[in-house]
This record gives sequence, C-alpha cells and structure tokens, in this order.
Amino acid sequence: MSRIVTLTLNPAIDQTVVLGALAPGEVHRARAVARHAGGKGVNVACCLADWGLAAAVTGLLGADNDAAFRQVFAAKGIEDRFIRVPGETRTNLKLLDTGSGDTTDINLPGLPAGDAFAAVRTELLARAGRGDLAVLAGSLPEGIAADAYADLTASLNAAGARVVLDASGPALKAALAAGSEGLPHAVKPNRHELEEWAGHRLPTLQAVRAAAEELRGRGIPVVVVSLGAEGALFLTEAGAVHASPPPIEVASTVGAGDALVAGLVAALAARLDLPSTARLALAFAAAKLTREGANLPPRPEVERIAGTVRVVPA
Amino acid sequence: MSRIVTLTLNPAIDQTVVLGALAPGEVHRARAVARHAGGKGVNVACCLADWGLAAAVTGLLGADNDAAFRQVFAAKGIEDRFIRVPGETRTNLKLLDTGSGDTTDINLPGLPAGDAFAAVRTELLARAGRGDLAVLAGSLPEGIAADAYADLTASLNAAGARVVLDASGPALKAALAAGSEGLPHAVKPNRHELEEWAGHRLPTLQAVRAAAEELRGRGIPVVVVSLGAEGALFLTEAGAVHASPPPIEVASTVGAGDALVAGLVAALAARLDLPSTARLALAFAAAKLTREGANLPPRPEVERIAGTVRVVPA
Repeated sequence: MSRIVTLTLNPAIDQTVVLGALAPGEVHRARAVARHAGGKGVNVACCLADWGLAAAVTGLLGADNDAAFRQVFAAKGIEDRFIRVPGETRTNLKLLDTGSGDTTDINLPGLPAGDAFAAVRTELLARAGRGDLAVLAGSLPEGIAADAYADLTASLNAAGARVVLDASGPALKAALAAGSEGLPHAVKPNRHELEEWAGHRLPTLQAVRAAAEELRGRGIPVVVVSLGAEGALFLTEAGAVHASPPPIEVASTVGAGDALVAGLVAALAARLDLPSTARLALAFAAAKLTREGANLPPRPEVERIAGTVRVVPA
Repeated sequence: MSRIVTLTLNPAIDQTVVLGALAPGEVHRARAVARHAGGKGVNVACCLADWGLAAAVTGLLGADNDAAFRQVFAAKGIEDRFIRVPGETRTNLKLLDTGSGDTTDINLPGLPAGDAFAAVRTELLARAGRGDLAVLAGSLPEGIAADAYADLTASLNAAGARVVLDASGPALKAALAAGSEGLPHAVKPNRHELEEWAGHRLPTLQAVRAAAEELRGRGIPVVVVSLGAEGALFLTEAGAVHASPPPIEVASTVGAGDALVAGLVAALAARLDLPSTARLALAFAAAKLTREGANLPPRPEVERIAGTVRVVPA
C-alpha cells in the first residue's frame, strides 16, 4: 500500500465572523465565529481521511495558534508531522454581513518561513519512498524560494515517490520549468492556472486539452485540469477523458479543488485506470460540494456519486 | 511583605489589524497586526511587575489561544495561576483604517465559564492569606453568578486578606450590596460607575465626594473614584484627598484605570499614608499614559512623576 504525505508550507486559518451589519467606525458584537484550519495539503488529507486513507501531513505551522489544526488532525486520525515555528499561522478573516450577505475579507500577514524549511524537507522525505505519494500543495510563504517545489520534487523522484503538485502562480511556473528530474508525476491546474502557464486564453475544451497535452509532453505523466462546474479533464498515457459532475445541491464550493486532488490521490494509490481515476476524482469533488469545509460525506455516498459521474473520451 | 494576586475571570485579547481603508465587501491585505493579551487583573499585574512587585495572576483562560498571555507573563515575571478551559479566550478585533483614522470594533464571543470557577476560587484562596492583597477586576463571563465577587470577597475576608475590587455594572452592584462580611477593603469606581451605583448624576467634585463617603459609610475602608483627566478622589478613615495628574504627553489611555488600581495596590502593600497613596496611584496612571498598553516606564520615571502629582484635601 502506498503511504501518503501532504505538504502545506503556507497553511491558513479561515475565521468567519458573523455580524448583523458591518458599519465602519462602529462597535460590533459578533453573533458567532467559525474557524476552519486549512490549507490545500491539509484539506487533501482531510478528504482522504474521510474516504478511509491514512495520510501524514507536514509543512510549517505557527506554534502559537495550532490548536485548531491539532483538533482536526485528532478528529480525523491524520498523522501530524508539521514543523512548528514561533508565532502564528496566518488568519484570513471573513466578516459576514448577514444583512447584505456580503463578505469582507481581511487577510492577515503570514509567518516568515525562516530556517524551518530544512526540517520540513526531512519530514517529507522520511515519509515518501518508492511508490508512495507526496502531495505538494498551495502557495509558498515569504522566505521560501519559488523553485522549492521543483527542488523537493527532484528529491522525492530520486526516492521513487510519486509527486502530485497543486500550485499556482510563480510556484507552479517554477515547478513546471524544472528539468525532467524535478517534474511531478501529476499536476492539477485549474483552467486559469493553465492559461497563465500557456500564456494565452483557453476558451474551448479543445484548447484546454491541447495545452494539457503540451504539459504532458514536457514529461508529466498525469495532467488533470479542473474546470469548475464543467468537471475536469484527465490526461495520461492511456489517453484523455472529460469527467462531468452530476447535478448536485451545493452547500459550499470551498475546497472543491482540494477534494479533486484527494480523489486523484486515492485513485493513484489504488492504481486505478484512467476512466476510474476520473470518476473517483470527480466524485470526491462533487461529494465535497454537499458539505461545508474540506469534508466528504461517508464513503458509500461518495461511491454512489461516483456512479453518476459522466466520463467521456476528450 | 504582602503577597499580591489578581483575578481576571473574563480576560480578552485585543487584536489590532492595520488596514489601508476598510471597504465592506472587498478583499483586504492587512498591513500589520498587533496583539495585546489583557483584562483588568492582567493589566494590574503587568503594571505591578514593571514597578518591581511580584504578583500572581489567576482566572479563566481559553487553552487554545493562551500563547499571548504566556508570553507576557514570562516577559514580566508574573506567576501564571490561570485555570485553562477548553476553547479560546475572547478576542476584540480593532480594524484600524489608516485612511480615515477610524477604528471598527468587532468583539468576538467569550468562553462560557463552565465548571472551572471552583478551581479558580481554590487558586485565589491559596494565594491570599492574612495581610495579602487580592485584586478582583473586570466583568464576569457568562455562566458566573453576578454575586461571584461578593462570595469570593467573603472568603478572602475570612482569611484576613485585603480585597481591592474594580468592577462595573451588575458585578459591582452585587459586590456593593453584600453584607459587611462580603465587602471589599477598597473599591475603585470611575465617576460613571459611581453614578450608576448612586442612581443619579454626580456633576461636581462635591457630589462625587458625598457619594464616595456614602460608600465608605457602608463599610468599605478605602474608596477611590477615578475622574479621567481630573485625576482621582481618595477616601479613607484618614480623610479625603483629590490628586491631580501633571501635564503629560499621552501615548495611549488604554489601561490607565488599571494602572491606577496597580498604584493603589502598591501603596496598600507598602501601607502608605493617604496622601502618599493618592500620589503613587496617580503617578502609576499618569506614567502609563506615556506608554502603549498596560506598561509602566522604569521606576525612577514613575517616582519622578509622583513628585509632580498635586494632592489637596477634598
């Protein structure tokens, strides 16, 4: 069985503060506060745990406010290998005005990564050997070089692990520009991220497919492009398929992309074929939409949804 | 030497978030965040520590975000006897709009006190015997009866400790309505709080003095009424004095009342006479005004300021 480890170098706590109405300059008493400890790699591990796959998590956490993370790891049976650094993990405040329905976002500063990156690398490499899966996900904090993912991927590749990369912006660009020894096994850009990489708009499914094929041609065996409500495109050496979600009642779209990655990882761990991989990954994403936060419904429900995913050659 | 312990049942973290401009519905990146772990009893202990008097602190702290408190206690050499309860100590968000200069306050919900009050009582009573000083300060959290201060004071009185009470609203009202065995040694209402107790406005110093004298008549040996920029009135069996602060450059008025209480406690610990007590207490408050947060300048500077406080019979 493949071991699974996810890396989150720039986690965040989403703190939703429910207000009657936001009035600048006034004093408000919040009606409620909800806190979600997340970050892409954490969310992926949470979905995998709900599916029944044990994952370890590592990365950088502020020592001063790690309680919300410890609680979710304990609740889901996730192995906590995060390196603690002095200070607080960044918080994204979401002020919800129940009058207007508007959300005001205030993103607080993050931790500087400092010298802890070397310890994270050690944790990561200790948990991903031959055939194991390492998920490198999310943005890079201040103080970590843009090519950190390429660098880690080269070491993981040398150890025989399979790297799944979910990043954007400079981190994605640098990762995809790596030499073949530093390229991931799988990437999951969304359409916009793929457009950024391609340098032009990709208005049709055909254009997306062509750009994804070009990415595969660079030496990445598995390319998945998430397309929001249109599902996702999956390309491997076996070909290309387009998977579409069933009609679903959406509770929250937060973390749907992370659920898709989790489904892809579950499929890679089980070494499923291309159509089954696409079906399972889409089922994770669709099932997550029915829940708040990075949570999946019980496995039978995810399996039922998988049966309703439409997979066609692309 | 009197031991000193302060009680804070409802502490809070003030989190100031510096923004360019607060625009409801938009996404903001905060420029800076500053966090102050406080609450009246904590602030009093901080000022006493800066003056050179060791104090223990107790009360209720949320276990999940106590880092800011631990840091200030460690930095000031304050003995941490707070009881931890599950969850987070309440946070008061202060969104500072650097464009308009306005502050938008969002006060998050507090902890329910639950069953931990008995443990706090035990800590408090273990640290305040004959001649010791116990400062009961601030509001009461949900789940604690309004007469909690009267109840604690009765036990502390029975042990021979001297209780200094700084509360307002229902907590003050219930404390002042206690039988003689539950009355504090000293109280420090501000003018507004004294008006609430008296049931009518106190427009002149004479009216304030009369109400304070009435309070003393109920059986409280030391009554101090803080009057903001007008200083404070001090009444004991030795008489009544009015102490006025020197002209001072104000950095922050936050915690000035707590500094006044700390000065009063320092004077009670040293068993100073009435004029010296008034002089020292006012000096603490005035010295604090020159600093951000609940901090005093070095002791020689406080002593210099004490020399400039004007004390006259009231």
